[in-house]
Order: sequence, then C-alpha cells, then structure tokens
Amino acid sequence: MSSSGRVVKRVILGRAMRSDRLGETLLPKRLALPVFASDALSSVAYAPDEILLTLGLAGGALAATHSWEIALAVVVVMAVVVMSYRQNVHAYPSGGGDYEVASVNLGPKAGLTVGSALLVDYVLTVAVSVSAGIQNAASAFTFLRGHEVAAAVTLVVLLTAMNLRGVRESGKAFAVPTYLFMFTVIGMAIVGFFREAAGTLPKAESAAYELAPEPGMGTLGTAAMAFLLLRAFSSGCAALTGVEAISNGVPAFQKPKSRNAATTLLLMGSIAISMLVSMIALALWTDVKIAEDPATQLLKDGVPVGEGHVQDTVMGQVAKAVFDGFHPGVVLVSIVTGLILFLAANTAFNGFPVLGSILARDGFLPRQLHTRGDRLAYSNGILILAGAAAGLIAIYDAEVTKLIQLYIVGVFVSFTLSQIGMIRHWNRHLAVERSGRERARMHRSRIINAVGAVMSGLVLLVVLATKFLHGAGFAIAAMAVLYVIMVGIRKHYDHVRDELTVVQGDTKAQLLPSRVHAIVLVSKVHKPTLRALAYARATRPSILEAVTVDVDPEETKALQLEWDKRDIPVPLKALDSPYREITRPILDYVKSIRSGNPRDLVAVYIPEYVLGHWWEQVLHNQSALRLKGRLLFTPGVMVSSVPWQLASSEGFEDRMDGPVAGDVRRGEG
Amino acid sequence: MSSSGRVVKRVILGRAMRSDRLGETLLPKRLALPVFASDALSSVAYAPDEILLTLGLAGGALAATHSWEIALAVVVVMAVVVMSYRQNVHAYPSGGGDYEVASVNLGPKAGLTVGSALLVDYVLTVAVSVSAGIQNAASAFTFLRGHEVAAAVTLVVLLTAMNLRGVRESGKAFAVPTYLFMFTVIGMAIVGFFREAAGTLPKAESAAYELAPEPGMGTLGTAAMAFLLLRAFSSGCAALTGVEAISNGVPAFQKPKSRNAATTLLLMGSIAISMLVSMIALALWTDVKIAEDPATQLLKDGVPVGEGHVQDTVMGQVAKAVFDGFHPGVVLVSIVTGLILFLAANTAFNGFPVLGSILARDGFLPRQLHTRGDRLAYSNGILILAGAAAGLIAIYDAEVTKLIQLYIVGVFVSFTLSQIGMIRHWNRHLAVERSGRERARMHRSRIINAVGAVMSGLVLLVVLATKFLHGAGFAIAAMAVLYVIMVGIRKHYDHVRDELTVVQGDTKAQLLPSRVHAIVLVSKVHKPTLRALAYARATRPSILEAVTVDVDPEETKALQLEWDKRDIPVPLKALDSPYREITRPILDYVKSIRSGNPRDLVAVYIPEYVLGHWWEQVLHNQSALRLKGRLLFTPGVMVSSVPWQLASSEGFEDRMDGPVAGDVRRGEG
Repeated sequence: MSSSGRVVKRVILGRAMRSDRLGETLLPKRLALPVFASDALSSVAYAPDEILLTLGLAGGALAATHSWEIALAVVVVMAVVVMSYRQNVHAYPSGGGDYEVASVNLGPKAGLTVGSALLVDYVLTVAVSVSAGIQNAASAFTFLRGHEVAAAVTLVVLLTAMNLRGVRESGKAFAVPTYLFMFTVIGMAIVGFFREAAGTLPKAESAAYELAPEPGMGTLGTAAMAFLLLRAFSSGCAALTGVEAISNGVPAFQKPKSRNAATTLLLMGSIAISMLVSMIALALWTDVKIAEDPATQLLKDGVPVGEGHVQDTVMGQVAKAVFDGFHPGVVLVSIVTGLILFLAANTAFNGFPVLGSILARDGFLPRQLHTRGDRLAYSNGILILAGAAAGLIAIYDAEVTKLIQLYIVGVFVSFTLSQIGMIRHWNRHLAVERSGRERARMHRSRIINAVGAVMSGLVLLVVLATKFLHGAGFAIAAMAVLYVIMVGIRKHYDHVRDELTVVQGDTKAQLLPSRVHAIVLVSKVHKPTLRALAYARATRPSILEAVTVDVDPEETKALQLEWDKRDIPVPLKALDSPYREITRPILDYVKSIRSGNPRDLVAVYIPEYVLGHWWEQVLHNQSALRLKGRLLFTPGVMVSSVPWQLASSEGFEDRMDGPVAGDVRRGEG
Repeated sequence: MSSSGRVVKRVILGRAMRSDRLGETLLPKRLALPVFASDALSSVAYAPDEILLTLGLAGGALAATHSWEIALAVVVVMAVVVMSYRQNVHAYPSGGGDYEVASVNLGPKAGLTVGSALLVDYVLTVAVSVSAGIQNAASAFTFLRGHEVAAAVTLVVLLTAMNLRGVRESGKAFAVPTYLFMFTVIGMAIVGFFREAAGTLPKAESAAYELAPEPGMGTLGTAAMAFLLLRAFSSGCAALTGVEAISNGVPAFQKPKSRNAATTLLLMGSIAISMLVSMIALALWTDVKIAEDPATQLLKDGVPVGEGHVQDTVMGQVAKAVFDGFHPGVVLVSIVTGLILFLAANTAFNGFPVLGSILARDGFLPRQLHTRGDRLAYSNGILILAGAAAGLIAIYDAEVTKLIQLYIVGVFVSFTLSQIGMIRHWNRHLAVERSGRERARMHRSRIINAVGAVMSGLVLLVVLATKFLHGAGFAIAAMAVLYVIMVGIRKHYDHVRDELTVVQGDTKAQLLPSRVHAIVLVSKVHKPTLRALAYARATRPSILEAVTVDVDPEETKALQLEWDKRDIPVPLKALDSPYREITRPILDYVKSIRSGNPRDLVAVYIPEYVLGHWWEQVLHNQSALRLKGRLLFTPGVMVSSVPWQLASSEGFEDRMDGPVAGDVRRGEG
C-alpha cells in the first residue's frame, strides 16, 4: 500500500517527489493491479454469502430462484461504477480521490461529508476484512471456531504493530498474494465449471440441509418480497467496496498514466465481476445452503441443527465441494482468501493516515497530522483506527453479516457525491470548451457519470431504506459525529487565524519594546548558568540581572557568596518565597517589572541542561519546564532557553533519526 | 494528617512557616493525640487476632495458655519503644523522623535503608489497614463477605481520589473518629470486665468450636514450640506500627513542645497497651476461637466446619459477646473500627509524599518531588502508593494475616536503626557536654535508647527468623530494590553535578559569543510573527533574518509577496525542504551557520500563540514544540519563545491556581 498511500498524498498535495526516487515508485499495470485491487477483489470472499443468506431469510426456494438476479444487478452496478470511475481517472489524472472531487465541485460541505464517510469506511474495512478473514480461515483451521472475536482482535493488534513499526512495503509485496488469490479462485471456478459440465460436481456439505424461512418470512407479500430482494441486493453491493481505489492512484502508474489506470480499472472490474459470478454459480450448482441463523434455519430431516452446528463460508463450502474434500486445495483457498483479506485490512491502515493528512491540510483535523514525521500524531491515527475497528469487532462478535450493514452506506455516500461532483466538473468544462470533438467526449463522459450518480444514488437509497435499522443508521450517526467534530476544529482554526491576522492600524504587534529588561534565572553557579549569563549579556539588554528564588536561606547565602567570589559582572537578586514556591515569585516579579514600564520587554533566560534519555530528562528541568509554561501566559515576556548539552545527549540526534513510522506510505520514505 | 504531614516536612526542612499561619497549625495535646495516634491505635484491631491465630496453629490449648505471655511481651516491647522515642522527642525537638536520626548519626547508607523501609511500610500500612477495615466491617455488614478484595481495592481507589483532589484536612477531622474509637473500645472493655466479674459475660460464638492444631503441629518439641511462640510474638508486634509518628511531629505541638509531645507519646502508649490487654483478656474470657484456616482447624463436634464457615475478627466476636448480640453496639464497634483503620490508611497517603520530598531533597528521588506544587509529581507519588497497595491486596486476597508478615519487618528496621542512631547521638553530645546534671540525663537517655535498640534489634531478628519465608523476605527484597534505585538516582544527580561544576581555567561556559546571529522562524505574516520580529530586533543582534521552510512553493511565494508588501525591515530567507519536513532543514541551516563561525551565538526566535485549553494547545504549536526540543541538542543555540496570548488564554492563570493537591499536608496550604 505504501505506493498507493504515498501517491494519493503526493498527488493530492500536488507535489513531485525527488526525481531520484520516482523510478522505484511508478508502477507498471501488472503491479498497480494488485496494489489497488486487493480491497475490491477481497470482497468476493463475503459478498456472495451476504446475498445468499439474506435471500435465505425467506427460505431456500427464494435463494435458489433469485440469487441470480441479485448477482446480475450487483454486476450491473459494478460495471456502471467502474465505467464512471474511468471518467474520474481521465478527468483527474492528478489523482484526487472522492474527497477532492466532491470538495472541488460541490464545495467543502460535500467534501467533508465524503471525508467523514471515508474515515468510517476505513474503520469498517478493517473490521469486515479481518472478521471475514477469520471466518474463512476457520473453515480450514477449525480450532479457530468459537474464538473468532479473540482471533480477529489479535489480528488487528498485529496489523497495528506492523504499521506502527512502519514496515517498508512495495507493490511486489502485494503482487504475490493478490495474484495467488485471483488464480486460485478462478482456477477453482474453471475446475468447478468443467465438473458441472461433466456432471461430476459434488454437492456442498450443506446441500443435505433444508433451509427454513425465518419466523414470519415464510409467505411474503409482493412488497415484503421486493423489500427482501432489495436488501439482498444492497448486501451484495459489498462487492463494490474498494473499487474507487485506483482513481486515487493514477500518478502511481507509468505513462500514459490515465490510459493505464483506466485499463487497470477495467481489468479489475472484469476480474471482480467474473469472480463474483462464478462464486454465485458454483454456490447454486453445489446447492450451498447458508443461513443468517443456521441454528434455527437449517433443518436436517425437518429438525433444526441447533447451536452446535458450524456454518462454513460460501467460499469454504464451494472449495470443499469442487476439490471433493481434497484437503490441500481447500486449505490453499482458505489461506489465500485469508491473505487477501489481510491485505485489504492493511489498505485501511495506509489510507487512513493519508486521508487524515489531507483533512488536516484543510484544517479539519489537527494540523500536525499534515506535516511530516510527527510519530505521535501518526501513531495516534493508527491507534484510533485499530481501537475503533476492534471495538466494532467486539460489539458485532466479528460477524461479517452484521458489520456489512454498516459498511456499504459509507461507500455509496462517497460514490454518489463523487459522481455528482463529476457531472458538475463536466458542466464547468463544457461551459468553456469550444472544440467539438472535446465537447462530444465531455458530453459522453457526463452521461456516464450521470448514470453512475443516479445508479449509486439509488443504491444508497436502497441501502438506507433496507439497512437503516440493521446498522446503517449507526454508521450514519458516526459520520455525523465526525462531521461535527471536524467542522468544530476548522471553526477553531479559522477563529484563531482571524484573531492573529494583522488588521491595518493595529500596531500592537509590531510595537518595538522601548527597553529590554533581561533576567537570568539562577539556582547554582554552574556551567549552564554561566553560559546563560554570557548569552544574555551578548544580547546587550538595557537592564540585566540574575534572579534566584530564596527557597532556602542557607543555599541562597552560599550562592550569594560564590557569586561575589567569582565577581560575576551581573547583579544577583534573591526573590522571597514564603511557601518555597519557584514559579509564583518569579511570575510576580516579572509582572511587577511590566506594570512599572508596560512598554518594556522582559526577556527571561532559563539555563537548561540537555540529557540523552527520557528517564534522565524526567529527573531534570522539571521546574524550568513548568515555569516556562506559566511565563508564556504573561504578556510582554519572552522566554529563552539556554541549553547546556551534557555528555549523554551526544548521539541523541541519531537516535531520533530512525525511520519514522509511516514515512514510506506517506511518500517520505 | 495535614498537620502531621505539614509539620514533618516543615520541620525536617528546618523552615519556619509564615507566622500568620502558625496559630492555626499548632496542636494542643487533645488534638495532637488523635492526629498522630490513629495509626498506632488502629493496630489493636488486628494485632490480637494475629497473636491468637498464630498460637492457634498448635491447637486451642496453646492459645488459651500462652496468649497472655505473648501479649505481655508485646506490651513490654511497646513500653520500651515508647520510652525510647520519648528520648528522640527530647533530643530532636525539631522533629526529625527516623530517616533524619539515622542519616545524621549513622550516615546516608543507614538513612537510605530507613527510607526504603519506610516507603515499603507506607504501602503496607495502606494494604493492611484497608484489608483489616474491610474484615471488620464484614462482621457487621455481612454482604461484604466474599467480596473483600473488591471492597478493599475500591476503598483504596476512594482514598486515592480523596488525596488527589487534596481534601483539606485538620486535626479536628481526626479527633472525632479517633476518640470515638478509643471510647468505644475502652467502653466495651469496661462493660466486659464488669460482666466477667458479675459472671454474666457470655461466651463468643466461636467458643462452641474446638480448635484443632494444623497438621503436624499437634505435638511440638520444645524448640518448635518456642519458635511458634516467637512467631506469635512477632505477629503481635504489629501493635507497634505507627508508634514513631509523634516523634516526627514535635513542632506541631504547642509549647513546651518536647514535654507535650513526650506526654502525648506516653498517653498514646498507655492507651494502646490497655486496649491491647483488654482485647486479649476479653478474647480469653469469651473464649474466642480464631484460626488461620478456619475451614479445617475449627471443629464442630469433632468435624471441621468447612469452607462455608466465616470467621469474625476478634474485635467483632468480642463485641457480639459483650453486647450480647445487642446489634447497635456491635455495629458501632464495627463502624468506629472501620473508621480508624481508614484514617490509618490515609496517614500513609500523607506521609508518603512528605517522605518522598525529603528523599528528593537529598537527591534520592526525582527533584521535582521536593519543590512545591508539582501536581504531576505529587499525583504520581499517590498513584504509585495506591497501585502498590492495591497490588498487594490483590496478591494476598486482602488477608491481614498474610500482609502482616511483610509489615512488621520494615517497622523494626527503622526502629532499630533510629535507636542505634540515638546512642551515637548521645555519645557525640557526651563527648562535649561538661555539665554534670546534663551528662547524667544524657547517660540515662542513652541507656534507655540502648535498651530500645537492643530490644527492637532482637524483635527484628525474631521477625526475620520467624517470618522470612512467610513474606518478610519479600518485604526485604522490595526495600533492597528501592535502595538500589535511589542510590542510582543519587549517583546520576552527582554525576551531572560534577559535569556541570565550573572547573578553574575552563572558560568554555563564560565565553562571550563574538556575534549574535538571530533567526526568526516565520510561517505566515500574523501578529505572533510581527511580535517575534519586534522582540528579536529589540535585542539588536549582529545579524537578523527571518527564515521560513519552503514546504509549499505557492504558500512560500504568497508569504514572500506579503513580506515585500508590508516592507518588513528584515530579510526573509526560504529554506528548501524536498521531503516537506520542518525540523530538519532548520536544524541543518542553524548548524551551517555555526560551522561557519563557531564563536557565534545563534538565537532562534519562535513565535508561539498561547491558548487556554489543553485541547486547544493540542491543535497548535506542535511543530514548534518538536523543533524546540531538537534545537536544544544543537550546541551554540539559544531558543526564544515569543508568546502571543490569544483571548482564550485569559483567566488561565486563575484556572491554574486552584488548590494544588497535597499543598495542605505538605505545609503550603
């Protein structure tokens, strides 16, 4: 993901990387595909299940008869979306994801909506992919059964650790598992087709069961039936998650970028579609029965199988059927599926901080997320993502079916807004474009995007209508919360900016202080103190005095004596401190100076010594730190730290300059 | 505890408080007693139990026959210790706890040993008192049964919260519960004696049981018997914990301090002794049977009572017998006992930070623990104490019997060293003292302290011999660890001091920079920047330039333009930053200046804006902060923060100046 991550950011920030590094960055199609497709392709591991078990709610018959139509509908939507994004790719060769497209064409509100949606999506990508990965793995590694949540959370922790340490990734790292997954699944499909043609394709293990409708879903009215079909459809649309990825990464492609990107997008689309179709087909031929609540819905000779029963994923069941229980084949499928889902989850860990830095650039998130190398900020992002995902996994028992309900809504929110944005985009250009051929092309593109907008808008409505109570509402709420927070942060930044901008005539800021009254804080006569005095004198202040706080009369006397002994050419003043405080007396003294001559600048010089280890720092400079913090609140004061580097501080620089987690994927590796 | 805490510190730091506050501080005997005695008196709530159940290990007979002797032995020790500390009180009217006495007379090693012992003790005071409090409460409030650990930990959390918030306490707050406890217990004793005399004193509920010896303890050889008696004795010595408290607080007394303190000490001693004796007497008369492992040791008609059985504390059983099941009486006893134990635990929360600040003053703990008002440092102290205590409670299931094993050793380590120290003290004075009467007095005191030293030394040996394997070893280990850590910290401080002291001829520190090269860091042209420029100019540097990092060419160009537009009289330099870093380019530039003219001082001025809320700060100045941190490691650089106070920063001062947790008890309330 490094590449995609790096690129998205680089591009959106409209900044070229050092030429000497471009070579290693730009991706040929054969590498770009795996880098950007893992997320989209991985959804074939759970989308079919969702379609079948939603239909299954009304009993086996419906699943058997209608899953075809649903699959077809999903395929159509995917085709349309792919087509639409091919337009984005051509229109924004610079990349610019949905957030950019929406912001530019529909204004910041729309952009921020997309932003919130994407942030929520990243969390769900992790939760869903990881959960699905575990469920798949479980069909081969049965010991995972019953420990899904624990396993999933462990996986999230692993991912977090990986990304906090900032492992250097590359397109190649993605190629192997992604292609392996593609070939395995398609291979499995081919084998399956031939065996079906030869009539030797065995039934799935669950074929023996009968699929009973959920209570009250036995006989549905037309309306209810239609509603259920729509619900199944929107579940199936989970297959579209991640389709937009390529549109974020155009600049990562080798020239001609746009064309290559468009081709790759088409390639990805067709692969995803064929995988989805084959899985559905195989599921039907092998007569896979899959239920939302197997315990009660699956009947063996008319009796529910009960809690004991464990249900494999469609992928797992099909594999077992196709490979006829040839274990290695089953295990292979299970492993590659697990791998691709792991990669998909990792995508989010890369995309999240990148999006974060973009939102930060626009002032919607803390600014330090934008500038580079803030390990803390970056790590916090990773941890928030991981925490939220783990939380969802725990809440929803790592059950994909439940998580899916939240997932799709965000995806289609950004699809829709992005496509609407594209229409505006073309309108703008058509307003100025004169060349007939160009206008024709733009008209064509606008139509495609319009279809895309309408289509994804409809899906969004369907999703909301069918899933709002099943969790989509929760996702919407989360987005709303994020939206409000980000607006708040932006408001704050704007407010501060206004307060800081220099208005004509207000010369308060430029005002040159009439005199500089310098104070050097002294506790002992040691090297840091002497250096601080030397530096303070070097700035030739109008008044210069050394100040100590009389916390302990004996010490103060001793200090005074040594001061005279060394006849230091600066007067030493001792501040009374009845309560043995350090901060307050100094603050009061500084204020007294100011109140006397409000136009004076009080420059406070604090001798500090610098050590190399945090635990050493803990043992020193604490009161200096506290004091500095407080002085900054006193107007007309400048606080200068005069450092004295102790031996142990040497080499600290090097220690600090290890690889910063996430540099790579943020484009600064 | 405020008073005692405040005083100990004040005194040991040899510093007088503001006269206007002395009035409210000084304690008449009637208030001093409760303030300092709660810890010592509270131990009567568990000491008898320990004596009886240890003897009980060899069966009922032994407990019945020998508990008298044990109690007597404990009483003797207590009397001796009280007598010895009366000498301390006279010799150190300034207060000066065991740590001081040991350090002054036996050197820092001994002092530090006492210090470690006391730190461990504070933790155990909390653990034991709280556990005992819960056990007592449980005999009246049976719903606590089975939830002792949870309840105890909750109580610790409560204490922690109380002390973190720094509730203002006073001698009066202690008077009520302490006197209540004294009167209740003594009242109970009197009632008991009369009923015994009248022959109407009923038996305890456990009298019906038979106390079986632990397996293998049925018939003991003389040696084993002696060992068991010693073990019982050392358990009983738990009664002495807290006796030294008064010797730390002499200056808190009204004049004549020493005499009043000595009297109070005597008073406390006699009360503690009479309480202990009465409890043992009542326990014997009411024929209380108490076993370390009731399930197996208590027999009902020859059959073990089994796990189900719950065993009341001696206090609880005696109360039930004396008040003849008159419930209110029983509840009262239980409540006041709980209260005094709660106070005793709170003592530790006050003593711990005070001792910490003393150790910090001597460089054995981080220095900020010494200076006032470091909420963080203080709070950390409280949290460490609470955490350790909670940990012990969890490890030892809140069972007093187990915790006691660790407790006593520390107490007697400090008793012994303190008394040995006193002998040295007298020797020193006798060497110079000429007046016959004085010498006679000193000789007498020395004898008493010598007896005290020998006695507590013997007890220490007994404790070690009898309890080492039962947990005393663990306590010793803990002390050792603390000792090593503190020595390490001191070493570090010494090392730094040496590195910082100015050696003759080494003028590196005094060296006046030949020129000052001032840099003002600029990101935008806003008020903070202008002020920073104004301040920098006010220091009349040899070279002054504004520096910005070219992270974004457009922004940089815009900045450059505005710069010229306002014709700011300072040249603006843009540093190239290929990787969009802020810190590195500036560091490199600063270094380049230095390498050119090593005798120059580079003064870096950073415009900062100050906001009132932490969450606001999080949104700002982050890169400035990071940069400052890094610049301090570059030699020949001075970093000046030029603050701009935003509206929201107003009133921050006041927010900061709420009562600092622990001020009161640290003598700065």
